Amino acid sequence: MEKRRACMLLCQWSFTKAISNHCRVLHRALCFQRSSNQVIRFYGSAPLERSASFSEIKSEDINYFKSILGENNVIQDPDRLQPANTDWMDKYKGSSKLMLLPRSTEEVSHLLRYCDSRSLAIVPQGGNTGLVGGSVPVFDEVIINMSSMNKIISFDKASGILVCEAGCILENLESFLDNEGFVMPLDLGAKGSCQIGGNVSTNAGGLRLVRYGSLHGNVLGIEAVLANGTVMDMLGTLRKDNTGYDLKHLFIGSEGSLGIVTKISILTPPKLSATNVAFLACNDYFSCQKLLFEARRKLGEVLSAFEFLDSHAMDVVLKNLDGIRNPLPPYNFYVLIETTGSDESYDREKLETFLFRLMESGLILDGVVAQDINQVLSFWRIREGIPEALMKSGAVYKYDLSLPLEKMYDLVDEMRARLGHPANVVGYGHLGDGNLHLNITAPHYDDAILAQIEPYVYEWTSKHRGSISAEHGIGLMKANKIHYSKPPEVVQLMVSIKKLMDPNGILNPYKVLPHHLSANN
Amino acid sequence: MEKRRACMLLCQWSFTKAISNHCRVLHRALCFQRSSNQVIRFYGSAPLERSASFSEIKSEDINYFKSILGENNVIQDPDRLQPANTDWMDKYKGSSKLMLLPRSTEEVSHLLRYCDSRSLAIVPQGGNTGLVGGSVPVFDEVIINMSSMNKIISFDKASGILVCEAGCILENLESFLDNEGFVMPLDLGAKGSCQIGGNVSTNAGGLRLVRYGSLHGNVLGIEAVLANGTVMDMLGTLRKDNTGYDLKHLFIGSEGSLGIVTKISILTPPKLSATNVAFLACNDYFSCQKLLFEARRKLGEVLSAFEFLDSHAMDVVLKNLDGIRNPLPPYNFYVLIETTGSDESYDREKLETFLFRLMESGLILDGVVAQDINQVLSFWRIREGIPEALMKSGAVYKYDLSLPLEKMYDLVDEMRARLGHPANVVGYGHLGDGNLHLNITAPHYDDAILAQIEPYVYEWTSKHRGSISAEHGIGLMKANKIHYSKPPEVVQLMVSIKKLMDPNGILNPYKVLPHHLSANN
Repeated sequence: MEKRRACMLLCQWSFTKAISNHCRVLHRALCFQRSSNQVIRFYGSAPLERSASFSEIKSEDINYFKSILGENNVIQDPDRLQPANTDWMDKYKGSSKLMLLPRSTEEVSHLLRYCDSRSLAIVPQGGNTGLVGGSVPVFDEVIINMSSMNKIISFDKASGILVCEAGCILENLESFLDNEGFVMPLDLGAKGSCQIGGNVSTNAGGLRLVRYGSLHGNVLGIEAVLANGTVMDMLGTLRKDNTGYDLKHLFIGSEGSLGIVTKISILTPPKLSATNVAFLACNDYFSCQKLLFEARRKLGEVLSAFEFLDSHAMDVVLKNLDGIRNPLPPYNFYVLIETTGSDESYDREKLETFLFRLMESGLILDGVVAQDINQVLSFWRIREGIPEALMKSGAVYKYDLSLPLEKMYDLVDEMRARLGHPANVVGYGHLGDGNLHLNITAPHYDDAILAQIEPYVYEWTSKHRGSISAEHGIGLMKANKIHYSKPPEVVQLMVSIKKLMDPNGILNPYKVLPHHLSANN
Repeated sequence: MEKRRACMLLCQWSFTKAISNHCRVLHRALCFQRSSNQVIRFYGSAPLERSASFSEIKSEDINYFKSILGENNVIQDPDRLQPANTDWMDKYKGSSKLMLLPRSTEEVSHLLRYCDSRSLAIVPQGGNTGLVGGSVPVFDEVIINMSSMNKIISFDKASGILVCEAGCILENLESFLDNEGFVMPLDLGAKGSCQIGGNVSTNAGGLRLVRYGSLHGNVLGIEAVLANGTVMDMLGTLRKDNTGYDLKHLFIGSEGSLGIVTKISILTPPKLSATNVAFLACNDYFSCQKLLFEARRKLGEVLSAFEFLDSHAMDVVLKNLDGIRNPLPPYNFYVLIETTGSDESYDREKLETFLFRLMESGLILDGVVAQDINQVLSFWRIREGIPEALMKSGAVYKYDLSLPLEKMYDLVDEMRARLGHPANVVGYGHLGDGNLHLNITAPHYDDAILAQIEPYVYEWTSKHRGSISAEHGIGLMKANKIHYSKPPEVVQLMVSIKKLMDPNGILNPYKVLPHHLSANN
């Protein structure tokens, strides 16, 4: 025991910078062909046709939109349409000829009522930072971009409740709250571009979920406009309200397919000043899991991140990224623990006591605690550098899965045994949330490897009651794969609710629900 | 400043006992007449008729139920039916002739499919501890009582995720988790009787909401059976799952009117051993509000309760309950703060520092911190004794409201000015949750006083975007009052969803939704 290194040096620091440096995870589809033809798109093996039930835009439509929004907010300029037609990974491309920029809920209502009456299909768009093709047109859908609805409506310091329009950029809200001594209960790599309306519509997870929970718990109210233009005022600012069905939850995570979210009321926690980060080594996955259990119990109220990576992930990072070093000797598993609390000295002492105890017990084989901001950033850089390092190491097959904790790493082991050389199977993720990023690299894309992975990975996830989309949503990418995580009865009720709320299917068509069950197919 | 008492003595203790001693709040309707006729009930001024669309039970039905459940689980004995027909306040009484006790989801499915085909109306029933008449029949509905589905299915210590059947009694789950080092994220006075399925179906709030948030954030999965018998398996055990619409939220708080919840998966937090309670005095409501703001910031991660009462509430308690004394001299407002954390000495120090600073600043005029379990219980007894004391002081008009914090006490002031002598207007509640219990006492029930209170109190709440039911739900009691808290468009979508999911309206009829819009009216 005494031979183990234990450079447990502690420091407290501001975490803002580290978070804004987080890398965004790139997910590239492998079995994806894009047709140049605007009428038929191929996603995987199934051709997708533009629904004949949708009208095409006519000059009268443009005139109507201009009468509602003014000339400047009706965008037909191809140069401005191009980025709105393309997702940020440059993977999904639509061919919309029209983008509308409403400035108020009333304008959104007018636009939707008109589009519904004319059967014009719509894509609601926020910051367009989604990873599953949910925020860009598939064909020629009209883009309703929410960026002009970007006002903060109110903030109550006593309760921490913020009310704002859907187009507010997450980072701007974060800055506003920072001045007030509060934080948003979610944080994402895309914070500089993504909008709160999009975050809510996709039920974005992000970096603070382990601490503050999901948006279903934090969003107190929503104003949304239905396909027929009806404004649903559910913009309560109350922590408790048991008057009937809580319909706002239908709009959280439905990816704009049931209505356009126009305003949000959200509970924001007070900003806590003291953050500490430890980088630790464990012998096996079971120890990582046990460490999480102990951390929940002993660090309970200050635990703010619990990330893990295996030695394969560490090797990929060390090999492909410059200026990164492993602060520990080689081990099988690494865990990054972050605490955030209100008291520097207490939090430091608490983490230190916790880590020493588990070093003594042998659960932690080795560990180092950041002693300055540079060390903090370097530890996070290892974890956050994995996606970038993977991209540099060859072809990457990427999966964003939720799995029961005790089963999570079995999939990595099984996949490793299944694929053998030359594939490299890498496991890492948000262990605190049960979210595994399973990545497989190979020298080049190979259908034979893909056939070994899929549908096996989805079937395995399904068999263990996991989720094939932990945090990114369904969008266009996984619309036909939802059955791996949801049984037919549940999908059928989703379809029925979609038909009830959007009978003409104009809102974000081809997304979220299986194409053969959708309103327009 | 130095003249103020500051007996800041601290102690740490187990809180379990105090919570189990909490009094249950009694809400009595005032404008309620019960007809002895089984066909017509009067609730307020509107007569309610048994819907002619429902069948009456025949002997073939009984035979079918016995074939599914066995003789012993088909209850026709009047002595056993009587308590199931009566709510625990003895306020609502049904006249059901049949109670069914399913032991499995499959049995629930068989029962509902049959009842739906026969148009037999159903009341899903848990522990029957509701306060708004939601859990008992209105007429002759068949009672489906879930108490036989009371198994714990699994518990994962690493993640804290509990999966259990709907009929588990909350206190039993609490005891089970206590042995594992965890707690349920909700706690109620009715814990000894209420069932987790009922808690979820009514979105129960309770004592831990300020710390752990609502069930929408803590419930990870639900299995529910629709009116037509379809089993909806949404029983995920994942913290993150973004695969389609999150339909489980429809069942949280819909009071059994969209389906019967049969199983639950819930995230449970680790048990924290150190609890401290302070009883404080403030000069005015604004100071209480400011104190909450400071407590959120400075006690952030350990704050677990923030309750307030005005001097009128204190006087009622001192006058009507034996053995209670005010630990402080008379002041205008009192606040009870509780912290719960993992470290005795730190939490004690933190609370002490916080309180001394605010005493110095003058925000807190006086205060005492419990130094032993008896003091803790005596402080909670003041707050929790208010409903009982009110009941002893005469006729009581009771309102359970959520209001924006800054407006909350204005209603108490306005009501006091409006009513004058001899009415006594009392304000107290869960300030941390924005939940006001407005109570008005008078020597005896008086229609003139009631007419001064209603609909004024509902209109006032509505005008300030409050909720007329913070935590108790709608049930039968407020079905026709929902419009005070929800606009017509939102109520209309509720009705449409009800009709979609329960086209024959067999599930908990006459409840939750306005009678003139309901499926059977």
